[in-house]
Amino acid sequence: MRALVELQVIPLGAGVSVRKEVTQVVKLLHNYDFIIDTHGSGTNIEGELSEILAAIETIHQTLHDQGIARLLSYIKLETRIDKVPTLAGKKLD
Amino acid sequence: MRALVELQVIPLGAGVSVRKEVTQVVKLLHNYDFIIDTHGSGTNIEGELSEILAAIETIHQTLHDQGIARLLSYIKLETRIDKVPTLAGKKLD
Amino acid sequence: MRALVELQVIPLGAGVSVRKEVTQVVKLLHNYDFIIDTHGSGTNIEGELSEILAAIETIHQTLHDQGIARLLSYIKLETRIDKVPTLAGKKLD
Amino acid sequence: MRALVELQVIPLGAGVSVRKEVTQVVKLLHNYDFIIDTHGSGTNIEGELSEILAAIETIHQTLHDQGIARLLSYIKLETRIDKVPTLAGKKLD
Repeated sequence: MRALVELQVIPLGAGVSVRKEVTQVVKLLHNYDFIIDTHGSGTNIEGELSEILAAIETIHQTLHDQGIARLLSYIKLETRIDKVPTLAGKKLD
Repeated sequence: MRALVELQVIPLGAGVSVRKEVTQVVKLLHNYDFIIDTHGSGTNIEGELSEILAAIETIHQTLHDQGIARLLSYIKLETRIDKVPTLAGKKLD
Repeated sequence: MRALVELQVIPLGAGVSVRKEVTQVVKLLHNYDFIIDTHGSGTNIEGELSEILAAIETIHQTLHDQGIARLLSYIKLETRIDKVPTLAGKKLD
Repeated sequence: MRALVELQVIPLGAGVSVRKEVTQVVKLLHNYDFIIDTHGSGTNIEGELSEILAAIETIHQTLHDQGIARLLSYIKLETRIDKVPTLAGKKLD
């Protein structure tokens, strides 16, 4: 099942700036066969739902393995069966 | 990896009231070995991250199989390694 | 206009535990004439939309005044005109 | 107080496609002195917090006045006092 996901990962205890961790999240997402659009409040992802969910789990595990104590992810997940959802299809005129 | 998740599933095209679909989401969550707290803007879930993510995928698939054309899920996902995250542990005094 | 709001305030740079700040957010919300339900991933609020939005602004200002450098709020906001929205009315059977 | 906000407005009862309502939300936001970036899961807004909150209330009121029965807004709100928050400043290298 194809899905559109917005993912924003917030590390707690990493300080006021979270740029280093956010950069790593985006880098990890590029390991997958996703279409990706990073913006000011997260990264929009187009891909297979099961792969996106697996990527999210891997991202949490990877950042924890590097010592980040606590992670909050904010996720918007969209699926539909009337047509194939794409990021390109959501562009407004 | 243990996780705390808030899940809110919104069907589009199901009309102004989404109670029927929300009730079914909560019913599906009770099929799993989760600790569950349903409130006015979603359901809080404590369980294994991989099982929770699998449940979310199953929920989308099940509702689509019943004819819901489009689904939006809003998910807050928390993991931590300094202690085991529990819903009980988040209660304020 | 009556509204239902879920508010979760996350301080960055306050460390791994954010309990102190969350407790204060809930305390500040009790200064208003709202119906409040605090749960594991935020506080659900029933009240006048303009007052709730003003409260959110006051909360950010108050926590910044106390030295919290960066604040992220995650807000779900619901309004409807077919009936008066209430937290009580969202309880599932 | 300057703020960065992500706003996503979802009408319920408007059918499977919500493009018409989303287009109107973005149009209404352009009436204000905001810096705006619309993407696949919402619109990022840079501006004065009080004006952005007022705009959100106006958007709900306007869409309800046009007959939309129920509206859900998903809002991420960021403020900080260590520096002025800007959308440009959140671009990753």
